[in-house]
Amino acid sequence: MKIRVHVALKNGVLDPQGKAISNALGSLGFAGINNVRQGKFIEIDVAENNPDKAREAAEAMCRKLLANTVIEDYQIDLDL
Amino acid sequence: MKIRVHVALKNGVLDPQGKAISNALGSLGFAGINNVRQGKFIEIDVAENNPDKAREAAEAMCRKLLANTVIEDYQIDLDL
Repeated sequence: MKIRVHVALKNGVLDPQGKAISNALGSLGFAGINNVRQGKFIEIDVAENNPDKAREAAEAMCRKLLANTVIEDYQIDLDL
Repeated sequence: MKIRVHVALKNGVLDPQGKAISNALGSLGFAGINNVRQGKFIEIDVAENNPDKAREAAEAMCRKLLANTVIEDYQIDLDL
């Protein structure tokens, strides 16, 4: 089963990468860019086939390693 | 309208970040991890409201700035 995790900075936390992308898009001539946020996504292929257990494992992975929960939010999706 | 872009290394391109995450998860005691790939996602809030034009702009952004198409694939989703 594939687990897809999105990790992004919480709203209100300054996102310098997003800001840099926004500025670069502006320099390239793209108009009408209101806001840009950048995050990461992680695709984990696990042997576990039980969706509940896979989600539970993914939650633990996010809390322990993948996300810094002080400043980041995470979202878990399962590819059944 | 919000444009969500996922950029990931193409299959077959070595993904050292994914490998590092995989090893770290193993060290933390998570078993049954087959493979991990890491990519980035970018959320762009644009003034454009026409989905076709927004997608076209997003394609251009990916080709010109967001993705290195030699080694990376991108996927565009629109939040209508």
